[in-house]
Amino acid sequence: MEKLLFGVAYYDEYMPYDRLAEDIRMMKEAGLNVVRIAESTWSTHEPQNGVFDFSSVDRVLDAMHEAGIHVIVGTPTYAIPTWMVKEHPEVLAVTPRGPGRYGARQIMDITNKTYLFYAERIIRKLLSHVKDHPAIIGYQTDNETKHYDTAGANVQLQFVKYMREQYESLDAINRKFGLDYWSNRINSWEDFPSVVGTINGSLGAEFAKFQRGLVTSFLKWQADLVREYKRDDQFVTQNFDFEWRGYSYGVQPSVDHFAASETFDIAGVDIYHPSQDKLTGIEISFGGDLTRSLKGSNYLVLETQAQAFPDWTPFPGQLRQLAFSHLASGANMVAYWHWHSIHNSFETYWKGLLSHDFLPNPVYKEAMTIGRDFARLSEQLVDLKKESLVAVMVSNEALTAMEWFKLPGGKTYNDVVRWMYDELYKLNAGCDFIPASSDQLDRYKLIVVPALYAVSDETLHRLNDYVSKGGHVVYSFKTGFTNELVQVRPAQQPGIIHEACGVAYSVFVEPSNVGLKEHAFAIAAEEGQVQTWMELLTPTTAEVLASYDHPQWGQYAAITRNRHGAGTATYVGCMTSGAVMRKVFEGALKEAGLWGVEQQAAFPLIVKKGTNRAGRTVRYYFNYSSEAVHYAYPHESGHELLSDRPVDAGGQMELAPWGVHIIVE
Amino acid sequence: MEKLLFGVAYYDEYMPYDRLAEDIRMMKEAGLNVVRIAESTWSTHEPQNGVFDFSSVDRVLDAMHEAGIHVIVGTPTYAIPTWMVKEHPEVLAVTPRGPGRYGARQIMDITNKTYLFYAERIIRKLLSHVKDHPAIIGYQTDNETKHYDTAGANVQLQFVKYMREQYESLDAINRKFGLDYWSNRINSWEDFPSVVGTINGSLGAEFAKFQRGLVTSFLKWQADLVREYKRDDQFVTQNFDFEWRGYSYGVQPSVDHFAASETFDIAGVDIYHPSQDKLTGIEISFGGDLTRSLKGSNYLVLETQAQAFPDWTPFPGQLRQLAFSHLASGANMVAYWHWHSIHNSFETYWKGLLSHDFLPNPVYKEAMTIGRDFARLSEQLVDLKKESLVAVMVSNEALTAMEWFKLPGGKTYNDVVRWMYDELYKLNAGCDFIPASSDQLDRYKLIVVPALYAVSDETLHRLNDYVSKGGHVVYSFKTGFTNELVQVRPAQQPGIIHEACGVAYSVFVEPSNVGLKEHAFAIAAEEGQVQTWMELLTPTTAEVLASYDHPQWGQYAAITRNRHGAGTATYVGCMTSGAVMRKVFEGALKEAGLWGVEQQAAFPLIVKKGTNRAGRTVRYYFNYSSEAVHYAYPHESGHELLSDRPVDAGGQMELAPWGVHIIVE
Amino acid sequence: MEKLLFGVAYYDEYMPYDRLAEDIRMMKEAGLNVVRIAESTWSTHEPQNGVFDFSSVDRVLDAMHEAGIHVIVGTPTYAIPTWMVKEHPEVLAVTPRGPGRYGARQIMDITNKTYLFYAERIIRKLLSHVKDHPAIIGYQTDNETKHYDTAGANVQLQFVKYMREQYESLDAINRKFGLDYWSNRINSWEDFPSVVGTINGSLGAEFAKFQRGLVTSFLKWQADLVREYKRDDQFVTQNFDFEWRGYSYGVQPSVDHFAASETFDIAGVDIYHPSQDKLTGIEISFGGDLTRSLKGSNYLVLETQAQAFPDWTPFPGQLRQLAFSHLASGANMVAYWHWHSIHNSFETYWKGLLSHDFLPNPVYKEAMTIGRDFARLSEQLVDLKKESLVAVMVSNEALTAMEWFKLPGGKTYNDVVRWMYDELYKLNAGCDFIPASSDQLDRYKLIVVPALYAVSDETLHRLNDYVSKGGHVVYSFKTGFTNELVQVRPAQQPGIIHEACGVAYSVFVEPSNVGLKEHAFAIAAEEGQVQTWMELLTPTTAEVLASYDHPQWGQYAAITRNRHGAGTATYVGCMTSGAVMRKVFEGALKEAGLWGVEQQAAFPLIVKKGTNRAGRTVRYYFNYSSEAVHYAYPHESGHELLSDRPVDAGGQMELAPWGVHIIVE
Repeated sequence: MEKLLFGVAYYDEYMPYDRLAEDIRMMKEAGLNVVRIAESTWSTHEPQNGVFDFSSVDRVLDAMHEAGIHVIVGTPTYAIPTWMVKEHPEVLAVTPRGPGRYGARQIMDITNKTYLFYAERIIRKLLSHVKDHPAIIGYQTDNETKHYDTAGANVQLQFVKYMREQYESLDAINRKFGLDYWSNRINSWEDFPSVVGTINGSLGAEFAKFQRGLVTSFLKWQADLVREYKRDDQFVTQNFDFEWRGYSYGVQPSVDHFAASETFDIAGVDIYHPSQDKLTGIEISFGGDLTRSLKGSNYLVLETQAQAFPDWTPFPGQLRQLAFSHLASGANMVAYWHWHSIHNSFETYWKGLLSHDFLPNPVYKEAMTIGRDFARLSEQLVDLKKESLVAVMVSNEALTAMEWFKLPGGKTYNDVVRWMYDELYKLNAGCDFIPASSDQLDRYKLIVVPALYAVSDETLHRLNDYVSKGGHVVYSFKTGFTNELVQVRPAQQPGIIHEACGVAYSVFVEPSNVGLKEHAFAIAAEEGQVQTWMELLTPTTAEVLASYDHPQWGQYAAITRNRHGAGTATYVGCMTSGAVMRKVFEGALKEAGLWGVEQQAAFPLIVKKGTNRAGRTVRYYFNYSSEAVHYAYPHESGHELLSDRPVDAGGQMELAPWGVHIIVE
Repeated sequence: MEKLLFGVAYYDEYMPYDRLAEDIRMMKEAGLNVVRIAESTWSTHEPQNGVFDFSSVDRVLDAMHEAGIHVIVGTPTYAIPTWMVKEHPEVLAVTPRGPGRYGARQIMDITNKTYLFYAERIIRKLLSHVKDHPAIIGYQTDNETKHYDTAGANVQLQFVKYMREQYESLDAINRKFGLDYWSNRINSWEDFPSVVGTINGSLGAEFAKFQRGLVTSFLKWQADLVREYKRDDQFVTQNFDFEWRGYSYGVQPSVDHFAASETFDIAGVDIYHPSQDKLTGIEISFGGDLTRSLKGSNYLVLETQAQAFPDWTPFPGQLRQLAFSHLASGANMVAYWHWHSIHNSFETYWKGLLSHDFLPNPVYKEAMTIGRDFARLSEQLVDLKKESLVAVMVSNEALTAMEWFKLPGGKTYNDVVRWMYDELYKLNAGCDFIPASSDQLDRYKLIVVPALYAVSDETLHRLNDYVSKGGHVVYSFKTGFTNELVQVRPAQQPGIIHEACGVAYSVFVEPSNVGLKEHAFAIAAEEGQVQTWMELLTPTTAEVLASYDHPQWGQYAAITRNRHGAGTATYVGCMTSGAVMRKVFEGALKEAGLWGVEQQAAFPLIVKKGTNRAGRTVRYYFNYSSEAVHYAYPHESGHELLSDRPVDAGGQMELAPWGVHIIVE
Repeated sequence: MEKLLFGVAYYDEYMPYDRLAEDIRMMKEAGLNVVRIAESTWSTHEPQNGVFDFSSVDRVLDAMHEAGIHVIVGTPTYAIPTWMVKEHPEVLAVTPRGPGRYGARQIMDITNKTYLFYAERIIRKLLSHVKDHPAIIGYQTDNETKHYDTAGANVQLQFVKYMREQYESLDAINRKFGLDYWSNRINSWEDFPSVVGTINGSLGAEFAKFQRGLVTSFLKWQADLVREYKRDDQFVTQNFDFEWRGYSYGVQPSVDHFAASETFDIAGVDIYHPSQDKLTGIEISFGGDLTRSLKGSNYLVLETQAQAFPDWTPFPGQLRQLAFSHLASGANMVAYWHWHSIHNSFETYWKGLLSHDFLPNPVYKEAMTIGRDFARLSEQLVDLKKESLVAVMVSNEALTAMEWFKLPGGKTYNDVVRWMYDELYKLNAGCDFIPASSDQLDRYKLIVVPALYAVSDETLHRLNDYVSKGGHVVYSFKTGFTNELVQVRPAQQPGIIHEACGVAYSVFVEPSNVGLKEHAFAIAAEEGQVQTWMELLTPTTAEVLASYDHPQWGQYAAITRNRHGAGTATYVGCMTSGAVMRKVFEGALKEAGLWGVEQQAAFPLIVKKGTNRAGRTVRYYFNYSSEAVHYAYPHESGHELLSDRPVDAGGQMELAPWGVHIIVE
């Protein structure tokens, strides 16, 4: 990326009156240098079947270009026009909840050929129309694409063909998926039932994987189309997003981000998160680490919150802190959804940088300071290179399998992922994410493996090898329990990784009034409670780090560590408090030789670092709290960029509430 | 009304054995002088298509007449017979939840012409059969009529025609309703989609308004039919009801009571409410004030509870207190639903005046005292004239819009209405209700405006004028935020009323640990907590009555008052405790010159007043508690009617638990 | 039964690899002597329409026979193959929630003739194939059979015919079912609507009764088929189950166990229950008492939990205690569901005796001790004869009626049943269950009648007679309120039983802050709170045992006892704490002459007794707690079987946590 991008999504089409010149004036005043347009407005650009009108695109492109503001153009395919649904009701996705209804976005069957015909036509028309415009720096395909649970008869037919291709014979399918159970056995291809009603978790998970494949194919198809038109200086990206729990929580269930991102030049993402008193920076870091890992490079935050909801409106200082939080994880672009707050329809209370009144408000005014600093510091902050020696291994397959087989209390895969990731974050242990299929394990000194529940033998053997060759792994409970088809391994658990972990179990229970007895580290009673899940571990060769404190289960281990070859494998057999998880990581980081000065800082003081284009180390210090934080700068002398002041080695620093320091060595 | 009516709904058709003579004997003993019949029993009166049998109507009319008990006859159209649904399944309403099923009442499409054909025929047959009967004092059309969410293809077609009539062009609709958003733009009338799946709040709210219009039309059509038969000495009424939260809570979402009541001679209503320890009298007062306001006159309580549910069965004394509570709000009739408790079917536990055993029970015995007192005091209590100088402005449009855009925690319009109304009630500040379209503002000294979220410019200008000419207004947050089509005003909030309120905001947040700092009145910490919603107010000319107590939002005002012309406008920018709301009203009532002796009484001592036919002031004192209450009678000497004793000015009065005094000056 | 059976459900078809020899070796080691097979695997046995493959049955039968392990063969009809649904989608039950979907078991319309054709064919094919095999000791028809809410058009048609047969005329139906209400009157048979949408509780309850009749007929049809093949030395049984609240909670709503069990030789059942700290033994006792009562004889526990869910995995000792708990209630067989934990599909976490790893685990090892003891003690423990002098009268009709008319807080019939039963259990008052239609009342000294809400006059008169002849009854509130068609009796409540109870009420309320005032026994404040329901009782001849402690309802009785003829009738008019219920039972047991030494033991020390084949009294002592319990053995000297030691009269005994003593006199 040439420079830091600071932007907004802009919808000229939604304006209650002509605002373009005034909006651009205010954008310039705020230092915004990029807008994203057109991804939601198909019905404006193609008001009737085959009638095209790109005038709102043209006028925005021309005006932005004149103002020196870049434009990212989206393909408008994720929200379909009324005329299409009236002419071809079959474009609506049939889901397990029944036929679709017109109204919302993201309601179509992305495999429907009629939809694809129209989607291709609007993309070709739009791109051939704008392709030579100098304002455009890149394209976004569709938006937050998923499969929308499409599961109608045509999709079932595709799935049967997919199954035959994957597994060849019904005998193999019956055996691998356990279809004898409850008389689900399929003895003739014609008898293959719709899986919408299936109770077979293996089959259900395979269908979910197949559906994720539809998304990958759809996005590749779009990106290929865009590439026919785009110039070499332009990029194609996609706006990925995460499991949504009212905010960006964890691994996306419906898209395989690693697979889907292959076709793109650069990864894009939207990240939304709690704010005000609840701001921790974790979701920004999580989403940033994951998105950076997709292409192993910097990424674009295509959407994040400005004012947004009444409970997210940032405290004074937070908007500024958030922008630099994104950069600290490796973002090259921070863009708000959206410029102005929308006056009608659905997302009226998802407010943009401007309120509905378009006046300069406190949040907009804070953005002005960000724009100035981005421009001033772009050269030093853009293209931050991050080298992580820690990786978190994640898996869509494990996630889906654990949706079928939930933990007690309804807890799922991402609860385990976040339980582990959050403590790495609080320890300032920067990390990448890797898929279970990764062959790059050796790049890392420590690999954290949350609940890798459904996983191939191959991956587990690779992890064993990694440890034997000197790597360190921290596993959570349930890892390796089933194979990649959600068939429980018939060996003693934890199955294949027993070799590296030196621990075994046959029985697991739901904890009730169970604590932890300390062995390797001190555990206060209040942090020792075990929740949700516990495996009754018996070490074969492992050292016991903690065992259960319970009248009946007291003889079993809870957390173990095993030396295996040149490395160690730590196995956490139960869900613990964050404090205990942090102590486990402390041990593992020390084993891996990764315990440094940053780990002695404690949340809410968060440190992120990387190397800039000039090869200098840039360190971000964040204070995610309403109280000032003091720290001694533990590195060689440097320069704090925001205040433009020198910092001495060991110098005493005060970081204001919701404040940021950026120190270049 | 000639006299106070005291009655029950009576269902001869439901009796397990012939009870008519015995029931009438017991009714007479209880002083009942009116029954309501026939509104639920179409299948009895028309057992087969075109076969009519009014024998149960005839025998009840004759027997009641002989006993001197009046009868209100209902048109039996709100519960349809099985034969109709078997012959014409299309009479069932298709709703957003799918096709209808036979079983319950209120399941038909009130626009279906087949249903209307049969409805017209049964009304004409019934009325031509009974029209000369001397027992009948009036008619009720249908019952608790609503649109039952009818939204099938035929209704969608009517809606498109309605939209074209209202807005003429699709361009206008696209613009006003913001349909460019998410590609919802409609570019050809044929493409107009069913709005059942719409995510556009403006469009959804317009459909709800259209559906309310269907109710108004349907009721007018019925009332016109009835008027072809009714005598001049008879009335036509409708049994309106309220938003139902297990009891009568607030403004009815599905009916525009002001519009629908125009066609009727007198307004009727049902009012149900918590009882026992939870009895406050608020719902009786709320429902009474609203119903009285519809025609600006006395009204009929066509249904209220006798024993009802196990948690409503009145404590000794409460049934009596309830009856007079209705009169004190202006009712001329109090009728129980229903005479006897039903032995089968659905509402078995919604008990009547009699239990299933038909024996005189404690509640029935208490009714006997009410009947005696109603008869004795009718001349003094009937046609109570109430002159309110306070009005609460309510709006179906604001209600619907806030269903689309709920407050945090799922709170809605009626929560705001009741938060304000309840405190007026506790201050004994009698009030009317007025619609947003009212041109009668000048009749009031104080107008209370809860969350008038969707409202026309015209109304807001009228309110500004009202203040400038000397009126006083108390606004809650969110007032004026959108226009009547739920389009947010693109001016700084609170938009048009800024002129009178002298306050502005661009940002609002959801409060978390936010208190109020006192300026104009003392606020105890425990009553100062702000909930649900807060606007960050900056006064332009207004005086700050309270500001926020919060580290980040402390510079903003929370409650302001502004002098504008000869009046004042108070703006309450956040949801407060009842105690704070009461203090705001105290200030406003004082400004309006309405602070009097009644306002110094405090709940549970409630005072209601009016003028009787003789022009005398009648004051009701109620004790809504289980402890006796003492008060000094602050008016000129009078006469307490129930005890038939004189009351001296300043005399010390003791009001028993759940007791009533009625004092005529 | 020749001997105690100790077994598992065994699914050779589900095995990930050939385990048969090894499984049998491990079974023998654990002392298992019976397996149940084939009830879930139709698609394996008939892979295509008309193609049969019983090889997995054959190989298991042969191998088990060789090993001396008995086999119970199930008819595989409760889970249908995919080919059937593809060929005949109409076999899926249409329910009130809509058409069925393939996937789960128990999804078919058990009245569909196509399904019945195939079911008959597979039964005949299977049974003719295996009928001569010496391993088979009996057959199970289908599994956990219910009506699966089948309610499609064909079922509605059958229901109309049923109604005509039962009630002859529509006039009678309209009158008895109260169909005039809300215009539900049916005036022509053709107009009879589907009852799926009915709001009439009488009609809805009748349909539920009709549906239970479908289950009875279906099971009889299957049992008759099986009887064509079975040998005289073989039995036919059914696996009944209970209302499921995540475990076996109460009376089964969908099956009339008394009627359905008539066709079978011996009753079978599955019983599942909370475990670990929550193990009380109540569900085992409840399920056992009820199942024993069906045929008045010993029964088979065809399924119960081994490891099962993470929160049920037994503490050390519990599996053993559970096995003997079943025997103590009269079981002759204890079988686990299931042998091994399943590796795919749905019930992966419902673990069997073996974990997925097939290794000897602590639970399996505990089973080995049970197997040894069952074998050693079989002669002394099998065919335990239990003579109960207490009976609990239960009723599907009352249950269904109370589903229509729920108690406040959503409480239902089984909440009342369990409230009463649990206290009998804690008092060690062994009991039978009897249906409301029982003509065997005289066999009992005390009959407990929970909420017999819908009941015929005949039953109530029989109960009155029973009391007058010297029997004792404890009634709960709501008993006798409606007749068998859920029509409230129009007499003063409690209607017909007033004669025996000497108490009357017309009014009932939901208690709020209501206590009990003691009359006949001490009531601590904390145990005196009344919940859910209270009837305002006025005794006519009864003695007041407790009255309400409340400012308004204090004059009414809460619990009364009446001498009537030679017996007593106790009426409990409100829901009390367990402690109060226990005191009521204490009084009633004393009146009935049933208060003995066992009643002085208190939960968690539970005593069960019976007579063995040798005519000796066998007493089981259970400690359902994690603390040791001490007791003095209050009977003549005997012998403790498990430890093989003598026990002296009055001897001090220590019972370990979760321990068992079995003492033969």
